[in-house]
Amino acid sequence: MTVSALPAAAPAHVPTALRLARSAATLSTSAGTAADCDQWLAECSERLAAEVEPVPLDELAGWHRRPDTGDLVHESGRFFSVEGLSVERPGAAVDRWCQPVINQPETGILGLLMTEIDGVAHFLMQAKMEPGNHNGVQLSPTVQATRSNYTGAHRGRPVPYVEYFRDAARHMVLADVRQSEQGAWFFRKRNRNMVVEVREPVAVRDGFRWMTLGQIHRLLALDDVVNMDSRTVLSCLPLEGPGLDQGAPAGPDAFRTALLRSCGAGADEGAHTMSSVLHWISDARSTAELRSRIVPLNQAEGWHTEGGRISHESGLFFDVRGVRVRGRGREVDQWTQPLVAAGGTGVIAFLTRSVDGVLHVLVQAKDEPGHNDTVELAPTVQCNPRNYAVLPPAARPAFLDEVLAAGPERVRFDAVLSEEGGRFHHTRNRYLVVEADDDQGEPPGFRWVTLRQLTALLRHSYYLGVEARSLVACLRSLLVVPR
Amino acid sequence: MTVSALPAAAPAHVPTALRLARSAATLSTSAGTAADCDQWLAECSERLAAEVEPVPLDELAGWHRRPDTGDLVHESGRFFSVEGLSVERPGAAVDRWCQPVINQPETGILGLLMTEIDGVAHFLMQAKMEPGNHNGVQLSPTVQATRSNYTGAHRGRPVPYVEYFRDAARHMVLADVRQSEQGAWFFRKRNRNMVVEVREPVAVRDGFRWMTLGQIHRLLALDDVVNMDSRTVLSCLPLEGPGLDQGAPAGPDAFRTALLRSCGAGADEGAHTMSSVLHWISDARSTAELRSRIVPLNQAEGWHTEGGRISHESGLFFDVRGVRVRGRGREVDQWTQPLVAAGGTGVIAFLTRSVDGVLHVLVQAKDEPGHNDTVELAPTVQCNPRNYAVLPPAARPAFLDEVLAAGPERVRFDAVLSEEGGRFHHTRNRYLVVEADDDQGEPPGFRWVTLRQLTALLRHSYYLGVEARSLVACLRSLLVVPR
Repeated sequence: MTVSALPAAAPAHVPTALRLARSAATLSTSAGTAADCDQWLAECSERLAAEVEPVPLDELAGWHRRPDTGDLVHESGRFFSVEGLSVERPGAAVDRWCQPVINQPETGILGLLMTEIDGVAHFLMQAKMEPGNHNGVQLSPTVQATRSNYTGAHRGRPVPYVEYFRDAARHMVLADVRQSEQGAWFFRKRNRNMVVEVREPVAVRDGFRWMTLGQIHRLLALDDVVNMDSRTVLSCLPLEGPGLDQGAPAGPDAFRTALLRSCGAGADEGAHTMSSVLHWISDARSTAELRSRIVPLNQAEGWHTEGGRISHESGLFFDVRGVRVRGRGREVDQWTQPLVAAGGTGVIAFLTRSVDGVLHVLVQAKDEPGHNDTVELAPTVQCNPRNYAVLPPAARPAFLDEVLAAGPERVRFDAVLSEEGGRFHHTRNRYLVVEADDDQGEPPGFRWVTLRQLTALLRHSYYLGVEARSLVACLRSLLVVPR
Repeated sequence: MTVSALPAAAPAHVPTALRLARSAATLSTSAGTAADCDQWLAECSERLAAEVEPVPLDELAGWHRRPDTGDLVHESGRFFSVEGLSVERPGAAVDRWCQPVINQPETGILGLLMTEIDGVAHFLMQAKMEPGNHNGVQLSPTVQATRSNYTGAHRGRPVPYVEYFRDAARHMVLADVRQSEQGAWFFRKRNRNMVVEVREPVAVRDGFRWMTLGQIHRLLALDDVVNMDSRTVLSCLPLEGPGLDQGAPAGPDAFRTALLRSCGAGADEGAHTMSSVLHWISDARSTAELRSRIVPLNQAEGWHTEGGRISHESGLFFDVRGVRVRGRGREVDQWTQPLVAAGGTGVIAFLTRSVDGVLHVLVQAKDEPGHNDTVELAPTVQCNPRNYAVLPPAARPAFLDEVLAAGPERVRFDAVLSEEGGRFHHTRNRYLVVEADDDQGEPPGFRWVTLRQLTALLRHSYYLGVEARSLVACLRSLLVVPR
């Protein structure tokens, strides 16, 4: 027995944040240009395209409803199941409801490989078809796999590159943290978000490509290109600390200057100290009254199976439907599966303001029924406006109207992005970063925090929900203007 | 709406770690001497003494077994219940079992008030009788209350000082973090560990006393004086960083020098970087196969109700029994309740070694059925030796024999301390800190970490189990020799 050797130090001892900033500033290396990336993605989209057609739930192969509970389960007992969730939230505008929920107890891996090419950090991205993507192929991280996937429970092809993450200690681990996913639709889901740097040659397989952070950020500004799994892994990058602004161009851009300062060492403490932020979260978690428990799906009041789907009697919220996929370039070539489909386009937005020249974003402490620890931090606005038609006016989200009415001069980021196409059918949200007035305060349940504070929280599980993590990745894409 | 004002800065801008070290070095102030503390505690023990007598479970007032499940519940539906837990741990020496478990979904408060007297930090300690304490009264933090307690569900007296913690943002919050408790007996219990500094006069009520950290540490070395709740809250103090060694005496004590360095700013990275430690924990959590679920207590195989207790057929592990309490100085004067009683004395030990002059402790990633997130860090040894008589030899804990055989020159801390007397009956563990050889390696599942790394993890939930937290408090009591 000996103490394990430390991983080798970073190349030339350049701080990681600076290496990431350099990568964000770079659009062209010997691995390719931005135009090459576009062309490659277009080719992959063509080649990996799949036919996805609706199938009634009762015709899904390998899936059935359990006679005793009505739960929708796979015959292997693995993957995931759709069960019922009974939720109570005493005192809230909607104080109790039932709903279907995805139960997926396994911890999957969302893994991103990094390596240096021409002295610039590159990330191994994958062009991946998912049945729920309305446009088929999107950009995913190197590995995006459930435990059933990579341990072979689905009898498909092995998951490429998964060995770098299952045996990551041999390499340099930049991030490894279990995070939740949509608390509105998953019951205590956890995925492992990993970024691993390799110093050895890696064979680039068909459908994969090394990209700089600048190339990825450029694609992130487009609708429906960079998928949810990529966004959440990117948010876990340690993009913070001294040296970061060395990658920034000179110029009188007050927003970007404040954003860079927000990631810098001076932003450990912002409008609130870190102790105060942790106290606020702890308090919200300790006093949240939300209680949820799994119940048989056939006990979920208001939800019915009709026309091969499970829907709410109002026609709103979401439904559970089946699809048949005939694809290429995936672990198996044909399969059927259920998906959750939310209608309409949701709104996910950060309001920002400057406090003493440092950019702050307004986060809310949001309780959701499927969260692992009751409350996680959400963006200023996180909702599907369509659903509020049938809910009491008191349920209408704060700041929604302000964000939707913002003039273009205040909108710093605006793209419609897809949620995970392996579970969600055409489920899209408009991601926005909107500047507020510098005297915008914080109502109860909201706090102004710096990006550096969020990055510190992102080293640990369950502080930021997946929507906030996605939006952190979007906001960071504005840090550096690529050359 | 305005951004909340920041709390006032610390007095005279002295770093908190230094103020804590000063307090640890101080045995006498105008608030009293160590002898005064002893005398006060003796008087309180006398005055607050209670009669505690065994009562069969079926004679507990307000408690009954649910006819359908056999669960032991309170008529109010609050406090806690004793239910069944079914556990599977594929591949382990013991790969499945059932057991009773305490289910207490509420988040309680363990709160410690701090103030400066004569420029020295003092903590408001309480002499508190708990029915499970074999010696009646022990030293507890300022507040030790379930939510049912402080919201009045038990129709007792109000909980003194709880307002400082429920409205803590008015003061200076040094720590506020939800932590688990014994994963062997509680199902996903969470208590809020809080340290709040006040700058206003606080009336000292009967049964309470301001003590320096030095006075508390002195009592911590005695058997069964400082209770579990005090120990876990003390562990969450930010006793780390630059300036700490200013409180230390000069002298050629290599152990203490290494211990001080272990808390210092240089110990952010020790034998392993923090990223590597987080990766190791994330990996252990993601690959742990332990699954546990609540089942009706009457389905817990091997457990029987006989003689008014719930016991295992082997007579080992623990039992659930009832007590009647007739006390004074508590929220209510007479009550009955169930308690969990583990027989024998457990062993909870850190092995320590020096790596480059910095003290490291050997922690293990331990899965326990009641943990909130599968795996938490435990001391090198954490077990009840008595139970291994009936278990397979492969189940015998690593390092147990080494710790028990250590010569006195290697033993730096050795005291028998009680677990929470409000839930556990005469349940005691021997807490040890034992020096290992400096070439002691780390077997799979174990890591050498610095105290500074543990202190960083202690800002967040569920990294360190309650046994490790207790032992961190014990180890820190060796940092400074009080004057």
